[in-house]
Amino acid sequence: MREGLTLGILGGGQLAQMLALAALPLGVRVVVLEPDPNAPARLCAEHLHAAYTDAEGLARLAECSAVTLEFENVPTQALEALAGRVPVRPGTALLERTKHRAREKEALRAAGVHAAPFVVIESDADLQGALATVGGRGILKTSELGYDGKGQARVNSDAELSEAWAGMGGAACVLEGLVPFVREVSLSVARTAAGAVAFGPLIENVHREGILRTSVFPATDAETLEPRARELARACAESWALEGLMTLEFFVLDGGQVGSTQLLVNEVAPRVHNSGHLTQDGGGLSQFEAQVRAVLGLPLADWRPLHPTAMVNIVGTDYVEGQPLHPDWDGIDALPGTHLHLYHKTWRARRKLGHVNLVAADAEALAARLAELERLIP
Amino acid sequence: MREGLTLGILGGGQLAQMLALAALPLGVRVVVLEPDPNAPARLCAEHLHAAYTDAEGLARLAECSAVTLEFENVPTQALEALAGRVPVRPGTALLERTKHRAREKEALRAAGVHAAPFVVIESDADLQGALATVGGRGILKTSELGYDGKGQARVNSDAELSEAWAGMGGAACVLEGLVPFVREVSLSVARTAAGAVAFGPLIENVHREGILRTSVFPATDAETLEPRARELARACAESWALEGLMTLEFFVLDGGQVGSTQLLVNEVAPRVHNSGHLTQDGGGLSQFEAQVRAVLGLPLADWRPLHPTAMVNIVGTDYVEGQPLHPDWDGIDALPGTHLHLYHKTWRARRKLGHVNLVAADAEALAARLAELERLIP
Repeated sequence: MREGLTLGILGGGQLAQMLALAALPLGVRVVVLEPDPNAPARLCAEHLHAAYTDAEGLARLAECSAVTLEFENVPTQALEALAGRVPVRPGTALLERTKHRAREKEALRAAGVHAAPFVVIESDADLQGALATVGGRGILKTSELGYDGKGQARVNSDAELSEAWAGMGGAACVLEGLVPFVREVSLSVARTAAGAVAFGPLIENVHREGILRTSVFPATDAETLEPRARELARACAESWALEGLMTLEFFVLDGGQVGSTQLLVNEVAPRVHNSGHLTQDGGGLSQFEAQVRAVLGLPLADWRPLHPTAMVNIVGTDYVEGQPLHPDWDGIDALPGTHLHLYHKTWRARRKLGHVNLVAADAEALAARLAELERLIP
Repeated sequence: MREGLTLGILGGGQLAQMLALAALPLGVRVVVLEPDPNAPARLCAEHLHAAYTDAEGLARLAECSAVTLEFENVPTQALEALAGRVPVRPGTALLERTKHRAREKEALRAAGVHAAPFVVIESDADLQGALATVGGRGILKTSELGYDGKGQARVNSDAELSEAWAGMGGAACVLEGLVPFVREVSLSVARTAAGAVAFGPLIENVHREGILRTSVFPATDAETLEPRARELARACAESWALEGLMTLEFFVLDGGQVGSTQLLVNEVAPRVHNSGHLTQDGGGLSQFEAQVRAVLGLPLADWRPLHPTAMVNIVGTDYVEGQPLHPDWDGIDALPGTHLHLYHKTWRARRKLGHVNLVAADAEALAARLAELERLIP
């Protein structure tokens, strides 16, 4: 049987949880290294309850068939401890890029892939003329540790830029030009150590307050955008020697502004992506199974839902009269085609707590029910 | 959040494993009571490693929101220990029927549902004329503890009947008449404690050596058979006051032999059923989620795949030249629409070790690929 395979995961959050749920039916045992005693993945994987740099925990991961991760900010020390003992996928070089915005942008450029105009801000001198270079308006983002809109500030003047940078404690940052995008889309690419490449579907995303709210498949204009997105993803995957799965977020421009392309890369995640959660219930392979397969070198073809599918995140709301606003659970259950995915996390404002996938026979039915679903989730 | 719910399961085999995999995304924590230290469900549920009658284990189950089961032969002592402390679904009365063939047949008759002709054999005197009563040829089956063709013998004469009964040590048995069926189908029904009823799809099944080999959705002649199967399932569910989910296996007769019906009940399982595994990947709700919802009283509508779907069991083969025959894993992966489900059990001849679901856009594509898939699984 195939049951001999084991997969180690650095991190035990909801992505690790869903990776483990996808791995188990493939005959794959999962071990997660995660300091949080209440980590979602502990419910369906062996939980090594220790720091990411814990020698004993890393030794146990080193016994696995391969190691992957669910977040980009894995301590370099952990990766170094695993190096040479077990395949870590994606590898250290790729992670060192994707965990650091400035390096990521430079690596994208080296792969021939366009991103928004940017300036690296690492000293007061870098502030000089930076805003003009990116077009007069921009977003200052810390190079490391930002996610879900944290560590970001919109700036419209040199004064605002200086202030924002001071507010971030002078941390290494990237100033990105504001791109006049009409939509955001994402696409995952998987590549095995042997060089086989497979793609996920092009997915359209709507953010709210810096957090992904809704994803939809198929994306608008997928016929023209998807082939181009695949080209860019392949260029990155091959140039960066990807082993495993990574996801590119793109801005869609309103008609070929930047050279020949309508797509600019916003950022790259070295793993499954929130937008790809909708692949769990559309009848095709899920992104989680795709990452497991790519990391373990199991056969993998392109994966995509068989049906129009959408996803709405359940995010912890602010408190209203001392209480958070809860989704209308019964309303969600009553809506045809919904699939609930809860992460078993404790409630906190702005925290991702779960998501609902929605499957429909055609795009019109999907759009109608999606509007209803969004009303049920505050 | 909904995460407060917990589900206890008596048994920790592959059905419990797949129930747990379906429960987790609903925000439901699962606890299984199971003496086998290597039970499949231990990988994704809290495992109480103790006998089904263990007082401490049962006390822990009694703290759950509700308790269900994955096999019918739950010791009466365990059910009695839980009674009044936690809802057990299906309940004791229903289980006492379905774990005992003679009682099950009598209860079916009381519900107005046809089964094959039968005679209860509990003493030598019962043998007298029994074979003639059921039509001259039959199958002797132990009333308790038989499964997957075990505890069964085909008999064609009174002498064979006597010999077979002696071979079963004179255990309480049922002699069933051989029914000239053309096909076998199955259908699950769920009913909440509040009386809401929902149905699974009608599924067509092919057995080999008493073990389910292949299931297909949609079943042949589903338009005419499914409404009738639902009627019978509803009659049973309501007459037996089902709380939870149960599955009816039917023989399809060749044109209305027995009164007005073409369907005879073969047997009833008080739980999800091997044939329903194909509901995991067809784009609809799975039978496992249906059982979890029915047992916990969560909203539930009819569930069925959105696509033609099939399932082939992976069963441990006999040894050939000292080795079991393995499925062609890479061949399975290369076949479009396959979804692998392995149970993490050790290999044993005639043991169910996993299954492969197969999804296709239409019935013709399904049939073609199913023939290929069956060749890949020895």
